[in-house]
Amino acid sequence: MALLDETSIERELAALPGWRREPGPPDRIARLYAFAGFPAAIAFVNRVAALAEEADHHPDIHVSYDKVRLVLWSHDSGGLTARDFRLARRIDS
Amino acid sequence: MALLDETSIERELAALPGWRREPGPPDRIARLYAFAGFPAAIAFVNRVAALAEEADHHPDIHVSYDKVRLVLWSHDSGGLTARDFRLARRIDS
Repeated sequence: MALLDETSIERELAALPGWRREPGPPDRIARLYAFAGFPAAIAFVNRVAALAEEADHHPDIHVSYDKVRLVLWSHDSGGLTARDFRLARRIDS
Repeated sequence: MALLDETSIERELAALPGWRREPGPPDRIARLYAFAGFPAAIAFVNRVAALAEEADHHPDIHVSYDKVRLVLWSHDSGGLTARDFRLARRIDS
């Protein structure tokens, strides 16, 4: 899948509040989510895992008690593609 | 809970193959686990989460596709205590 150009990345990010770009290489996008506690954080991880399996696209997931940080990029393409933003939108919807 | 001294940390680590010390501050211990795929990694996260809730002690959990990295330390004490090694042993048993 083709890497997105700068303009496309900026446009996609503008439509995804909370997600930020992590400069690369590889370019990635990341979002930090805060929950009421550890069980709620783990429940979110399981919802994200189900979406990731469905999409066959898997964010890195970092859990620190009541916080979960997701990091997305397209390993095969070495940066950001439409798949990353599609999954970010699904996770947030 | 009291921070462990160097001798105790070395002795505890010697009994926990795969766990390594992460120099601090704060001192932490970490282990990387590899699985057959993403679903197996997430299943492990859920088993760890159940043990963490039981112990009321929560490792940082980092998932990268088929790998899970756990990082343990005692936030309240600012380093390594008996609780960290107790939970590491439970996770590995």
